[in-house]
Amino acid sequence: MTSKYHKRSRKAGLAPGSLVHIGSPYAEKSKITLLRYNEGFFEAKDLENLKDFQADKDKETITWLNVDGLQDIKLFEEIGRIFGLHPLVLEDILNTAQRPKMEDYGDYLYLVARNFHDQENGGLLSEQISIILGKNFILSFREKESDLFKSIQEKISLNKGRIRKENTDYLAHALLDNIVDNYFVILENLEEKIEALEDDLIRQPDSSSLQAIHMLKRKLILLGKSLWPLREAISALERSDSALINKTTVVYFKDIYDHTIAIIDTVETFKDMLSGILDVYLDTVSNRLNEVMKILTIIATIFMPLTFIAGIYGMNFKYMPELDMRWGYFGILGVMLLVALLMVRYFRKKNWF
Amino acid sequence: MTSKYHKRSRKAGLAPGSLVHIGSPYAEKSKITLLRYNEGFFEAKDLENLKDFQADKDKETITWLNVDGLQDIKLFEEIGRIFGLHPLVLEDILNTAQRPKMEDYGDYLYLVARNFHDQENGGLLSEQISIILGKNFILSFREKESDLFKSIQEKISLNKGRIRKENTDYLAHALLDNIVDNYFVILENLEEKIEALEDDLIRQPDSSSLQAIHMLKRKLILLGKSLWPLREAISALERSDSALINKTTVVYFKDIYDHTIAIIDTVETFKDMLSGILDVYLDTVSNRLNEVMKILTIIATIFMPLTFIAGIYGMNFKYMPELDMRWGYFGILGVMLLVALLMVRYFRKKNWF
Amino acid sequence: MTSKYHKRSRKAGLAPGSLVHIGSPYAEKSKITLLRYNEGFFEAKDLENLKDFQADKDKETITWLNVDGLQDIKLFEEIGRIFGLHPLVLEDILNTAQRPKMEDYGDYLYLVARNFHDQENGGLLSEQISIILGKNFILSFREKESDLFKSIQEKISLNKGRIRKENTDYLAHALLDNIVDNYFVILENLEEKIEALEDDLIRQPDSSSLQAIHMLKRKLILLGKSLWPLREAISALERSDSALINKTTVVYFKDIYDHTIAIIDTVETFKDMLSGILDVYLDTVSNRLNEVMKILTIIATIFMPLTFIAGIYGMNFKYMPELDMRWGYFGILGVMLLVALLMVRYFRKKNWF
Amino acid sequence: MTSKYHKRSRKAGLAPGSLVHIGSPYAEKSKITLLRYNEGFFEAKDLENLKDFQADKDKETITWLNVDGLQDIKLFEEIGRIFGLHPLVLEDILNTAQRPKMEDYGDYLYLVARNFHDQENGGLLSEQISIILGKNFILSFREKESDLFKSIQEKISLNKGRIRKENTDYLAHALLDNIVDNYFVILENLEEKIEALEDDLIRQPDSSSLQAIHMLKRKLILLGKSLWPLREAISALERSDSALINKTTVVYFKDIYDHTIAIIDTVETFKDMLSGILDVYLDTVSNRLNEVMKILTIIATIFMPLTFIAGIYGMNFKYMPELDMRWGYFGILGVMLLVALLMVRYFRKKNWF
Amino acid sequence: MTSKYHKRSRKAGLAPGSLVHIGSPYAEKSKITLLRYNEGFFEAKDLENLKDFQADKDKETITWLNVDGLQDIKLFEEIGRIFGLHPLVLEDILNTAQRPKMEDYGDYLYLVARNFHDQENGGLLSEQISIILGKNFILSFREKESDLFKSIQEKISLNKGRIRKENTDYLAHALLDNIVDNYFVILENLEEKIEALEDDLIRQPDSSSLQAIHMLKRKLILLGKSLWPLREAISALERSDSALINKTTVVYFKDIYDHTIAIIDTVETFKDMLSGILDVYLDTVSNRLNEVMKILTIIATIFMPLTFIAGIYGMNFKYMPELDMRWGYFGILGVMLLVALLMVRYFRKKNWF
Repeated sequence: MTSKYHKRSRKAGLAPGSLVHIGSPYAEKSKITLLRYNEGFFEAKDLENLKDFQADKDKETITWLNVDGLQDIKLFEEIGRIFGLHPLVLEDILNTAQRPKMEDYGDYLYLVARNFHDQENGGLLSEQISIILGKNFILSFREKESDLFKSIQEKISLNKGRIRKENTDYLAHALLDNIVDNYFVILENLEEKIEALEDDLIRQPDSSSLQAIHMLKRKLILLGKSLWPLREAISALERSDSALINKTTVVYFKDIYDHTIAIIDTVETFKDMLSGILDVYLDTVSNRLNEVMKILTIIATIFMPLTFIAGIYGMNFKYMPELDMRWGYFGILGVMLLVALLMVRYFRKKNWF
Repeated sequence: MTSKYHKRSRKAGLAPGSLVHIGSPYAEKSKITLLRYNEGFFEAKDLENLKDFQADKDKETITWLNVDGLQDIKLFEEIGRIFGLHPLVLEDILNTAQRPKMEDYGDYLYLVARNFHDQENGGLLSEQISIILGKNFILSFREKESDLFKSIQEKISLNKGRIRKENTDYLAHALLDNIVDNYFVILENLEEKIEALEDDLIRQPDSSSLQAIHMLKRKLILLGKSLWPLREAISALERSDSALINKTTVVYFKDIYDHTIAIIDTVETFKDMLSGILDVYLDTVSNRLNEVMKILTIIATIFMPLTFIAGIYGMNFKYMPELDMRWGYFGILGVMLLVALLMVRYFRKKNWF
Repeated sequence: MTSKYHKRSRKAGLAPGSLVHIGSPYAEKSKITLLRYNEGFFEAKDLENLKDFQADKDKETITWLNVDGLQDIKLFEEIGRIFGLHPLVLEDILNTAQRPKMEDYGDYLYLVARNFHDQENGGLLSEQISIILGKNFILSFREKESDLFKSIQEKISLNKGRIRKENTDYLAHALLDNIVDNYFVILENLEEKIEALEDDLIRQPDSSSLQAIHMLKRKLILLGKSLWPLREAISALERSDSALINKTTVVYFKDIYDHTIAIIDTVETFKDMLSGILDVYLDTVSNRLNEVMKILTIIATIFMPLTFIAGIYGMNFKYMPELDMRWGYFGILGVMLLVALLMVRYFRKKNWF
Repeated sequence: MTSKYHKRSRKAGLAPGSLVHIGSPYAEKSKITLLRYNEGFFEAKDLENLKDFQADKDKETITWLNVDGLQDIKLFEEIGRIFGLHPLVLEDILNTAQRPKMEDYGDYLYLVARNFHDQENGGLLSEQISIILGKNFILSFREKESDLFKSIQEKISLNKGRIRKENTDYLAHALLDNIVDNYFVILENLEEKIEALEDDLIRQPDSSSLQAIHMLKRKLILLGKSLWPLREAISALERSDSALINKTTVVYFKDIYDHTIAIIDTVETFKDMLSGILDVYLDTVSNRLNEVMKILTIIATIFMPLTFIAGIYGMNFKYMPELDMRWGYFGILGVMLLVALLMVRYFRKKNWF
Repeated sequence: MTSKYHKRSRKAGLAPGSLVHIGSPYAEKSKITLLRYNEGFFEAKDLENLKDFQADKDKETITWLNVDGLQDIKLFEEIGRIFGLHPLVLEDILNTAQRPKMEDYGDYLYLVARNFHDQENGGLLSEQISIILGKNFILSFREKESDLFKSIQEKISLNKGRIRKENTDYLAHALLDNIVDNYFVILENLEEKIEALEDDLIRQPDSSSLQAIHMLKRKLILLGKSLWPLREAISALERSDSALINKTTVVYFKDIYDHTIAIIDTVETFKDMLSGILDVYLDTVSNRLNEVMKILTIIATIFMPLTFIAGIYGMNFKYMPELDMRWGYFGILGVMLLVALLMVRYFRKKNWF
C-alpha cells in the first residue's frame, strides 16, 4: 500500500506555487498524447514536447491533451503558459497527495480524482488524475501510463457514440466515468479476497488471518478516503453554474454521482463484513483456549485421583491390611476404573466431549 | 444473502447509457402485464411483446405496464422509445444494483425501490423495483414475478377503493405502499429468528450462535442500506413540486414515509437486541472458561497435597517412626480426609460450588 | 417489555386508510368520557356510544372527548365522520405502533405521544396516546384506562387553575404535560433498579447481573426511541404557525420541550451508568479468573517440587546413601518445609495473597 | 456525585407554573443581598425579606439582587410580583434540574447555568444558578451561599474596573465569567486526580483503579452535560438581538464562549486520557494472567517429567537392572538435573523469564 | 507532551481583559524583530523595547513586527496602545491555551494558530502563534523563538517571490503557510515512529508497546484538536468579506485550506493505523496465552498418565503378578512409550505443534 503522504515536508519553506513534483516517481519521462476532433475531423499524435504546439483556442475543434508522468517540471510550466493556468493549479497537479476536488477558475474547471491499481504484492497503488476542463480543450494528467482512457480514445477515433458530437463537458464526463468504473474492478478483487478470507477462517484460523483482515480494512479505508471527497467533487460539478457545463450533460454527472454512492455503499458493506470476520476470528481464538483448558482439566481430573490412590498403596506402613489381601491389587484396579468412569460420565453430562 | 454488487465491472469501459443487464438472472423471460382503466373502463392483458402496443398518451385511460424479468434488452429499448425515456433511466432499470431514489425527468418521475424475499436457505433475496410515473401511465419493472402487486390488480379490476377514481400518483403510492408493507413481513420473520436465537443462547450456547448473530446482523444491515435512501426518495416525492403529484395524494406519501421511519426504528431495535445477545454469548463463553478453571483448580488443590502426603510415606528411609506405628496407616488416612475436607470447606466458603 | 412491532404484516395488502386495530388488546371495550366546559359552564358524562352525540362546533363550549380502548372500529368511523377526520388519522390512531409526531391538518392538529406503564413482572408497557386538537374540541385516545388525565379532569370540574379560562391549546398542553411528567415517574423507578444493581454487583456479581443490565438498557432504549420524536413533535407544536396555537400558550409548550430534553438527558446519564456497571461486571469476571488461576498456581508450585522430592526417596535403588542415615527422614522433611516456605515467600513478595 | 434528577415526580400532576422547590435542600433559609449602584453611587445591604423593597425601575441606578437558597417559596412569589416575572421562570428557578439555557422574555432575559463544587468525599456537587437580566436590574439565584460572586461585589464596591460605568449586560457577563472560570478550578482538581491515577496504575494496579476511572469518567460526563447547553446559551446571548445586550458587550460574551469551548476541549481530552488509562489497566490485568500461567507452566513442565522418572524407579518390579547398579541412583539424579536444565533453557529461549 | 491546560484557574476572579501570561515560560525575555518594506524599500532591526517605535500608519510601507516570548506584560500593553488593539485580543495573545480561531475586529483581523515542536524526550511541545493582520501592518506573536518564519524574512530581504509586491494579506498567508507546512514535518516524524512500532510488534511485542501506542495516539489527538479549529479559522479567512483580504489572495488561503484537510486526513489515517496496531498487539497477547496453555496441557496430558502407571507398579500389594514377570519392567516401559506416542500423535493431529 502506498503512503498517502509523499514527503510533503520537502516543500516546507518554499513559496506557494513553487513547482516541485511530490509523489512517487512512477514514470521516468512524461508521455504526451494529443487528440484534436470535432464531428467531422479527427487527428491524433504523440508529442515529444510542446515547442511547436499551438493552442487553437478559437478554432472549431476540441483539443484533448493527455500527459502521463509528472517528472518533467519544464513541460508543466509550458502547459501553464499555453493554457493560462493558475500557478496553484500547476502545483496541485504535481503534488500528487491531493484529495479529489473540483475548483472553478472561471475560464476552466480543475478536477482532481484518484485512480487505484491492484499491485502484484497485494497492495493498492494510488494515482492522482487531474483534469482541466476548458471551453474547447481538456487536459488530463496521470502519474503513470495505463489503459484507463484507451476505450475513450477509440470511441473518438472511430466516432462511436455521441462523444464527437458533444462538447468538452461530455468528454470530461467520459473520463470521470472510466475512473469511477475502475473502482468496481478494484472492489471485485477485494470481494474475492474477503470471501477467500472467510473460507480460510472456517477451515484453519491463525494469526495471519488477523493481519489479512487489517490489510483489507486499510485498503477499504484508503478507498473510502478518496471516495467521499470524489462524491463531493462530482456533486459540485453537477450543481455547478459554470457555463462550461451544459444542462444536458448534468444528468450524466448525476449518473456518475449515483455510481459513486453505490461504490461507497459497497465499501461500507465490505467494512461490515470484515468486522464480522474479525469477531468470528476472535471468538475462534477464545473458543480454542476453552478447548485447550477442557482437555487439561479432563486429564487432570481423571488422573490426579487415580495417582493419589496408587500413592496410598505405595506407602510403606507396616500395617496396611489391604496389601495382604489376595485380590487387593485387582480390587484397587477396579476402584480406579470406577473412578475414571465416573469422571468420564461427569464430563459427558457436561457436554465437554 | 445476495451480493449487492452484481459484477458491475462488466460495464467498465462501455459508453454511459449502454444497455446491459447487470444482476442475477432471476427470470428467463420477461413477463409483460398491461392494465388500462379509468373510473368506468377496465382492460387487462398479458403481452408477448410490445409490437402492437400503442401508448394512448392522449386518451382518457390510465395505462399500467408491469414487466417482470429484465433479461430482454430489446424489450427495454422499445419501451424507452414508446414512452420517451432517457437512456440513463433504461440503464438504471437494468442495472439492478441501484440504491432507492427518486428522479424528476419533467414528463415523468423515476422511482427505484428494493424489495426483499425470504429464501428457503435462510438468506434474503434483494430485488430492484423501478417505477415510472407519467401523466397517464405507470411503468413498473421487477426482477422476478411475485404476488406483491396482486392485491392492487384485484382492487383495480373489481373497482374496490378509490384507485379507479384517482390519478397515476395514487397508483404509484399503492405500489410503494405494498413494497413498504412487505418490509413488515420480512421483519416479523427476522423477529422470530432473533427470539429463537435468544432462547437457544439460554439453553445451549455454542459457536454456531455467533454465526447466526452475524448472519442476522448482516440481513439487518442489508435492509437498513435500502431503507435510508428509500426514506429520502419518499420524502423527495412528498416534497416534490412536480405537476404529477396532486396535493391530496401528498398526505398518502407522508403516511408511507412514517411507515418507513417505523421500519427503520424496528431495524435499529433489532440491531440493539442482537448486540445484547452477542454480549450475553461472549459472557457465557467467558463464564464457561471460569467454570472449567474452577473444576481444575478444585481437583488440583485437593489431590496435590494428598498425593504429596502419600508420597512422603512411600519414601524408603530406614528410620521413619510413623511407619512402624500400629495405627499409622489409618491415622494418615484420617489426616488426608481432614485435609480434603478443609479444602472442600474453603471452596464452599468461596462459593465455588 | 412489549414489542414495538405489533404484527403490522396483518395490514400488508390492505388499502391505505383501512381501519384495523394493530396492537395489544389492552381493553375489551372502549370507554368514552365526554367533558363540556367554558369559564362558567361544566358538564361531564360517560357515553355508551356516539349515536346521540352532537358536535357543538359553533357553540361557545369546549368539548373534550376521551376514549380508552381502541377495539371498537365502528366507534372510530363515527368519530371520524362527526369531527371530519382524515382516514389516515383514524388509521394512525388505531395502529398503535406510531412514533410520536405532530401533523397539521388545517382544521385540527394531530398529535401522537407514547405513555409507559411499569409492569409487575418488571417489564415496561408502551401505550400510544393520540390527541386531536381542534378549534373548540379536543379528542384524546388511549389504549387503556388509567389515572393519567384524572388530575386534569378534576381541575376542570373544580375550576382550579387557568384551564377553564383558556382555549383548547392550553388543555392539549395540560394533557401533554401529564404525559411527559409520567416519564419522570418511570425514570425514578429505573434509577432505583440501577442503584440496586450497582449494590448487587459490589456484593455478589453473577451472570444474572448481565441480563439485568441488558434488560434495563433495553428499557432505556425503548424510552429513548419514543423521546426523540416526542421532542421533535413538541418543537413542531411550539414553532407551529397554526391558528389553533395561541401566542401565550407557546411558552408552555417550550416548557414541556425543556422537560423532554431533561428526560432525554437523564436517559443518556442512565445509559452511561449502565455502561460503567457493565465494565465493572466484566472486570469482576476477569479478576475472578485471575484469582482462580493464582490459587491453582500457588498450590501446584508448592506441592509439585515437594512431591518430586518424596518421589526421589521412594525410588528403590539399592545404593542410596541418604536412606540409611539416622536423620535422613527428618532432614528431608526439613528440606521440604524449607522449599515450601521459600515458595510462600516468593508469592508473598509478588503480593499474590 | 449528586443525582441530576431530584425527584421530579413530586411535580407530576401539578399545574404548570406551580411553585415547588425541587432539589437538594442545601440551605435552610434564603439569604438576600441587595446592591444598588451607578457610576457615582453605591449601596449594599442584606435584606431579611422584601416587604419594604421598592423596585426603582425608573431611577438611574442598577439593582443587583442576589438570593442564596431556594427554600422560601413565598419570597419567590414576591420577587415574581415585584419584577413581573413569568410563572414558568419562577418555576424553573426553583426546579434546580434545569439544563443551562437562555430565554428572551422581552423585558428581561432568563439565564440558567450550573456551578460545581468539589466535595470532601470526592464527589461533585452540582448547583443551579439562575440570572435574570433586566433593563436596570439583575437578579441572581443560587442554591447555596459561596464565594463565587465575592470578587464582583468587591469590584463594584471599590469601583474597580469598568463595571460601575457599564450597564446590566456587563454585570451579567461578569457573573457568567466567574461561573465559567470556576470550571477551570474544577478541571485542575480532576487533572490532579487523573495524574495520580496514572501513577497508581504503573505502580500497583488493582480493581479499585477501575472504580476510580469510572468515577472520574462520570464526573466528566456530568460536567460535559452542563457544558454543551451552556455553550449554546452563551452563543444565544451573543447572537441575541435583544435591546438589553449592547453591541460593545457582545465581544465579552464571545470571549466567554471561547472559554466554554476550551473547557469542553479539556473535558474531551480528559476523557481520552481516561480511555487510555482504562486500556492500560485492562492490559495489565491480562498480562498478569499471562504471567501467572507462565509460572504454573514452568513449574509443571519441569517437575512433571522429573516426578515421572522418580516414579519409574519407585516401581517394585523384581527385575529392574538399573536398581542394582552401583551408580544408578546418582546417574538418575544426573539425568533429572539434565532434564531440568533442558527445560529451563527452553523457557529461556522463549524469553519467559 | 505539554498540558493544553496551563493553570487557567490563576485567572479565576480577575476582570476580563486583565493581562496575565498563562502558559509555560518558554522564554525569559521577549525578542522583538521589526521589518519595514514595500516594493522598493527594505529595513530590518531588532528592538529592545517599543519606546521609540512609531507606527507609520499612513506611510506607504508594510510593517511586520514579530515578538518571540510572552513574558513582558508591559510590552504588550504598549503594543495594544500603539496599534489600537482590543483588551480581549491582548488577553488572548498572552493566554496561550487558545484554540485556533479568526476574529474580525474591523480594522484588523486576529488569527490564532498552534505550532508544534518535537521534543528530545519524544514529547510534543505545543506553541500558540497569534497573528494580527492590519491594513499596513502585521503583528506576529510566538511563545518561543524558532526558525519557522526565517524563510519568509529572507524572501522579503532578498525580494524573492511576490511578497514585496503584495499586501499584508499575502504576508499573513505566507506565515500561515509556513505554520501549516510544519505540520507535515511533525507528521513525518510520527509516521516513522508508527512504522518502527509496527516492526517492534512483529518482532517482540511487550507491554511497552501498548504505552507507545497510547502516547502516539495522544499526540495525534493533540494535533487533531488544533487542526479542526484551524481548518475553520482558515475557512473563515477565505470566506471573509473583510476589506483586508484581497480577492486575488483568497485562492492562496483556499490552497492552505486544502493542505489543512490533507493533514487532517493523514492524522485520521494514522489513528486508523494505530487502532490496527493495537488490535494486533492484543491478539498477540491473547495468542501467547493460548500457546502457554498448550504447552502446559501437552506436558500434563503426556506425563500424568505415565506417572499414574508408574504409581500403580509402585504399590506394595503382596500379590501383583506383573511384578514377578521376567520382562514386566521393560514391558511397562514399552506401554509407557506407547501411551506417550499416542498422546503426541493426538496433539499433532490437532495441529498443536
